[in-house]
Amino acid sequence: MSRSVKEGLARARELILSHRRFVILEHEKPDGDCVGSSLALALALEKWGKQALIVSDDPHPVIYDFLPGQEHFTRTGYLGLADFHADVAIFLDCGEPERCGRALPFAQKAKYWVNIDHHVSNTKFGDAVLVDPSAAATGEILWYLFGELGVNIDARIAVCLYVAVLTDTGSFRYENTTPRALRMAADLIEKGARPQEISELVYEAKPLSSVMLLGEALQTLEIHAGGKIACVSVTREMMKKVAATSEDTEGIITYPRSIQGVMVAVQFREADEGVHVSFRTRRAVDASRIAETFGGGGHPRAAGALIKGKTLPEVKTLVLEEVRRVLEQNPDLVVKA
Amino acid sequence: MSRSVKEGLARARELILSHRRFVILEHEKPDGDCVGSSLALALALEKWGKQALIVSDDPHPVIYDFLPGQEHFTRTGYLGLADFHADVAIFLDCGEPERCGRALPFAQKAKYWVNIDHHVSNTKFGDAVLVDPSAAATGEILWYLFGELGVNIDARIAVCLYVAVLTDTGSFRYENTTPRALRMAADLIEKGARPQEISELVYEAKPLSSVMLLGEALQTLEIHAGGKIACVSVTREMMKKVAATSEDTEGIITYPRSIQGVMVAVQFREADEGVHVSFRTRRAVDASRIAETFGGGGHPRAAGALIKGKTLPEVKTLVLEEVRRVLEQNPDLVVKA
Repeated sequence: MSRSVKEGLARARELILSHRRFVILEHEKPDGDCVGSSLALALALEKWGKQALIVSDDPHPVIYDFLPGQEHFTRTGYLGLADFHADVAIFLDCGEPERCGRALPFAQKAKYWVNIDHHVSNTKFGDAVLVDPSAAATGEILWYLFGELGVNIDARIAVCLYVAVLTDTGSFRYENTTPRALRMAADLIEKGARPQEISELVYEAKPLSSVMLLGEALQTLEIHAGGKIACVSVTREMMKKVAATSEDTEGIITYPRSIQGVMVAVQFREADEGVHVSFRTRRAVDASRIAETFGGGGHPRAAGALIKGKTLPEVKTLVLEEVRRVLEQNPDLVVKA
Repeated sequence: MSRSVKEGLARARELILSHRRFVILEHEKPDGDCVGSSLALALALEKWGKQALIVSDDPHPVIYDFLPGQEHFTRTGYLGLADFHADVAIFLDCGEPERCGRALPFAQKAKYWVNIDHHVSNTKFGDAVLVDPSAAATGEILWYLFGELGVNIDARIAVCLYVAVLTDTGSFRYENTTPRALRMAADLIEKGARPQEISELVYEAKPLSSVMLLGEALQTLEIHAGGKIACVSVTREMMKKVAATSEDTEGIITYPRSIQGVMVAVQFREADEGVHVSFRTRRAVDASRIAETFGGGGHPRAAGALIKGKTLPEVKTLVLEEVRRVLEQNPDLVVKA
């Protein structure tokens, strides 16, 4: 554990122990780590007789409805700023305060800010900075914090933290699947988290429309560049046909990427504002560099861009040409088979 | 650790240390646990200067080609019975000797039999019986055995054992995802297994035909019984259209099962010998009981049957009627929402 993490732990401990009312802030469009972490923290604070309120700009995805602690959750707009006065605001999984959107005013009323996150890009804001980029999830950092605070992890808290680490490691498949993350998961099972039940609830409670949309999108699967590029399209017509929401489009791009030999997977999606293009790449190709060519951005393995004023077929021609160019002109970017 | 497991470990250790030539037997259609375990064992035996040969009736699935130790592998028919004389035959992941098919004669020439398995149905055959149904995978039992034998687990052995536990727990999602399995995985990462690389190779190297077949099959998705039953069909025509192999049909049934509210997922597949029907159920419904009605069998959550002399639409009507009947007439079988 680094010195800054140790210091952050100590300072966060101090601020939490010496105050009574907490507001917990999540980033916009909260994911499993964010939701699991904030519920776990609210439940832990509740155990000590503290008041904890989670305020979020967006709802929690319905698949996390099974998690305990939801009674601590509210959305901006449902609660007036005057209704809850917090001593301390705790930001979870937010690289910068602005990431919590319209929930930020609730934090601005608090005396102290605690910043708990695992993103390397975190701006280190706040009075207590507990940022550990080596943690697989923000939930993993809470695990240490609870240890530091002497919280007795019960089954309800264990389930929330398990969801945090399970989802942020992609069911223990991503690079952040560290020995520490796996050992924490093992401990959480001993404390009452049921891995199969949780995995079923998280990964096997898909809306019918999302499975149908996947079927539609796979019909458009195309392979280019001798198998190195695979792309799929999601049209407005398809979305309408299966009554899909934009959430249903998530995950579709993992299918072209999962094909043997594919280096770059591309998804084109028609929307009112233009054509959304998503990129997923294998290790040797930088997705964010491709996305930047089209005014977008992202991470080395996952990036995207929004292209306006063109039809899907036009965007497709344009983008595939660029991806082909990247693969051809940068042979060092291409993994040797 | 139970007494019988301790005794099995001691007896297996003794037989391995006191002999030089080993034949390793896998069950037919070896899976990730079987392949990972046998390669790990062959590599460990090699480290001590022992001779080890894996004989299998079927090839290893190509997705496991990246695993080390393949030079120890051969298939029945490639090697004459007279070509290798083993002192000890070690059966891995085989509930009974017959499960290794035409590789059995290679074992019958050996003086001693070691039986290493985690199936509760294991018949406890052999001179050393190392059967532990509480182990997530046969690879987990090898992990203890290697500890007992003082084997230095290197990165090559670690990768093989990681694949064994990863695949048999369904990427740490099945019920057998125990704290022990997760801690073993953590140790294996420390010894050189790379979780992301391995997961990509195992789960993201799909043949193009399998992704295309999934798209075709999802077009047939139907929902019945108010959302409790979901079914998909795979026709001969589809298989031909995307040049699919029977391996490509694997996993398709997990999609209807993954839909929220579905209790029973059914897949119908046209083949020369008849219509293959597969069942996957949620906890409260016994798939094997449904399959038995049609002369098939299996496990409580996964079962199947082959129905001859009928067309796919005929079989579908028949089967859906029976599944509806089971759901209606056995309300205790149905999970309360």
